[in-house]
Amino acid sequence: MTDHPPFTALVADLPATVPFVGPEALERQWGRPVQARLGANESRFGPSPRVIDALCSAAPDVWRYPDPENFDLRRALANRLGVDMGNIAVGEGIDGLMALAVRLFIAAGDRVVTSLGAYPTLNYHVAGFGGSIVAVPYSGVREDLEGLVAAAHRSGARMVYLANPDNPMGSCWPATEVAAFAAALPSDCLLLLDEAYGELAPPDALPPLDPDQQNVLRLRTFSKAFGLAGLRCGYAIGHPSVVGAFDRIRNHFGVNRQAQVAALAALDDAEHLDWVVRSIRAACDRISSIASAAGLEALPTATNFVAIDCQRDAAFAQRILAEMARDGIFIRKPMAPGLDRYIRISAAPDDELDILAAALPLAVQRAQDAP
Amino acid sequence: MTDHPPFTALVADLPATVPFVGPEALERQWGRPVQARLGANESRFGPSPRVIDALCSAAPDVWRYPDPENFDLRRALANRLGVDMGNIAVGEGIDGLMALAVRLFIAAGDRVVTSLGAYPTLNYHVAGFGGSIVAVPYSGVREDLEGLVAAAHRSGARMVYLANPDNPMGSCWPATEVAAFAAALPSDCLLLLDEAYGELAPPDALPPLDPDQQNVLRLRTFSKAFGLAGLRCGYAIGHPSVVGAFDRIRNHFGVNRQAQVAALAALDDAEHLDWVVRSIRAACDRISSIASAAGLEALPTATNFVAIDCQRDAAFAQRILAEMARDGIFIRKPMAPGLDRYIRISAAPDDELDILAAALPLAVQRAQDAP
Repeated sequence: MTDHPPFTALVADLPATVPFVGPEALERQWGRPVQARLGANESRFGPSPRVIDALCSAAPDVWRYPDPENFDLRRALANRLGVDMGNIAVGEGIDGLMALAVRLFIAAGDRVVTSLGAYPTLNYHVAGFGGSIVAVPYSGVREDLEGLVAAAHRSGARMVYLANPDNPMGSCWPATEVAAFAAALPSDCLLLLDEAYGELAPPDALPPLDPDQQNVLRLRTFSKAFGLAGLRCGYAIGHPSVVGAFDRIRNHFGVNRQAQVAALAALDDAEHLDWVVRSIRAACDRISSIASAAGLEALPTATNFVAIDCQRDAAFAQRILAEMARDGIFIRKPMAPGLDRYIRISAAPDDELDILAAALPLAVQRAQDAP
Repeated sequence: MTDHPPFTALVADLPATVPFVGPEALERQWGRPVQARLGANESRFGPSPRVIDALCSAAPDVWRYPDPENFDLRRALANRLGVDMGNIAVGEGIDGLMALAVRLFIAAGDRVVTSLGAYPTLNYHVAGFGGSIVAVPYSGVREDLEGLVAAAHRSGARMVYLANPDNPMGSCWPATEVAAFAAALPSDCLLLLDEAYGELAPPDALPPLDPDQQNVLRLRTFSKAFGLAGLRCGYAIGHPSVVGAFDRIRNHFGVNRQAQVAALAALDDAEHLDWVVRSIRAACDRISSIASAAGLEALPTATNFVAIDCQRDAAFAQRILAEMARDGIFIRKPMAPGLDRYIRISAAPDDELDILAAALPLAVQRAQDAP
């Protein structure tokens, strides 16, 4: 019998959902290792060798608590970005920062506007703090900027979420459109602008940083182009009065010492970053060719993954995914209506794309032949 | 002008407090490095060599997201503790788990009973979720179990916090007293039992684990005896219906891959743990002798630090701290009335205790001579 002290009313009503099943959980479920890890938009090109050296050199120091002010990393980021340290908060990945941002702005009953099929972890955190989601369908394969603005005004939303470049479709709006979008939102509504894939975007996609802008909080990460997903390190850029408020609620010692050391080393290796970005572009091109050869159609991408139109219904796309899983290939797909006939494949080096190239045509064939 | 979208009413009222100033911040403030890092109860005896090897070996893998289920680590902990995996949640240190536990049980207006001068991060999280603290003074140098029970009943508290062994005084209650304490609490009140120093406690201090007990949540950490403070890894042990609820609100990918790898390796080196525990006991004995030689009186300790009675008032103890800081020695002191004439010194190897031994008598002398 369950007879524990009662949870809060909010928690008691929350479902035990999990935003994502990790590849390790799939391996336990499958009973064998993943052969090609192409589903989590990790950087299969790995971290900089300087990161690896820094992690090893710092390993004997893990008895020390991390610097709760993340001082060195914030200073390095500020220098790189041309803003003040006060414009930057460091956190446990974008997921961690997103939870804090929601907690700052969203109380029970408040509304958050996002796109139908956008990043589910945002929705998870909004529900976790009692907010409710207003979901706007994509316009084709891009987030519907006009629709999002209209929904924000109509619903009295306190926050709007936009990922640019976008996940899961890989699409992108130019900076001018994003800036106009921010300006068109209600004045009491925060734009949470997720730029996780920013380093991979075309040069005209990221609006210039404006340290005086108070209604936009931008989220970036070391998980994608920098290849540090395992270390959980992201940062928020915004007005000091917003960014500074993280200090009222965050886990001050939460950003791991190894994460801080690695992020600093990663910032210091521009050459590696360039190589990764070039390698990802080449890998995405190859994924597109593999998709074409299998009779599918890849979308252009501004990220480290490719969304592929399977050109039939959601069930068909799901069957392709299941067939790929039988071959030990881990990929994911969008689930929202309108996006659910797509699958999403992450960039990877040629050895993994060889596995993909061999498996995808067969998976499509088997999915077509299924009863 | 500050004109950002409005925070929630709760956040708008929160002060910009910081539970602890880290030693790195002190170094920036002092403009020179800390000579003896004796204030944060870190394990100056360091992590196991197996941890260092594991961190280096795993460094090239940091491009992978961590396993969000913390499966291997939870399984190893379950085996070690003789409970099910469902009894264990892994989180970003006790600080991170504490925030989640507060969020599960404490809504705006709910009361949490703790000791006056106990771990301030608990109070920080309680305030952060709108709860209020009912603080019970220590009884001498131990937490006042009877007083805490009475306060819980009187205030209708939803949570009681007890650290056993205790921080900042290093004192400890035997397991039988802790069990009786848990049984005497109101049935709708959770006991949050902080056992951060559990590996350093006398064998009779930790109550046996009872996986069916629903009103106690126990918190443990790799930050103290295991020497992994920089990696932020702790765990909660409790009934599956309580522990499982963390999945409704936690940052699922929050526990860093390096932290999981290191914690597993640390569990695998019992010999290192034994050596650390013996070394800490010897160091605490030496700190007591150093205190005596300086005319102060050390308390017995069940932890990796020693509380030292400076035998005058809070201002005198504070002057000793300031004099130590002038010599580059980082220590902390309790601030609560009744405890504020004490200072608190963490165990360390002899090279740092040599610095302490040289500095403490002079610091006491200068504090006595101060106008």
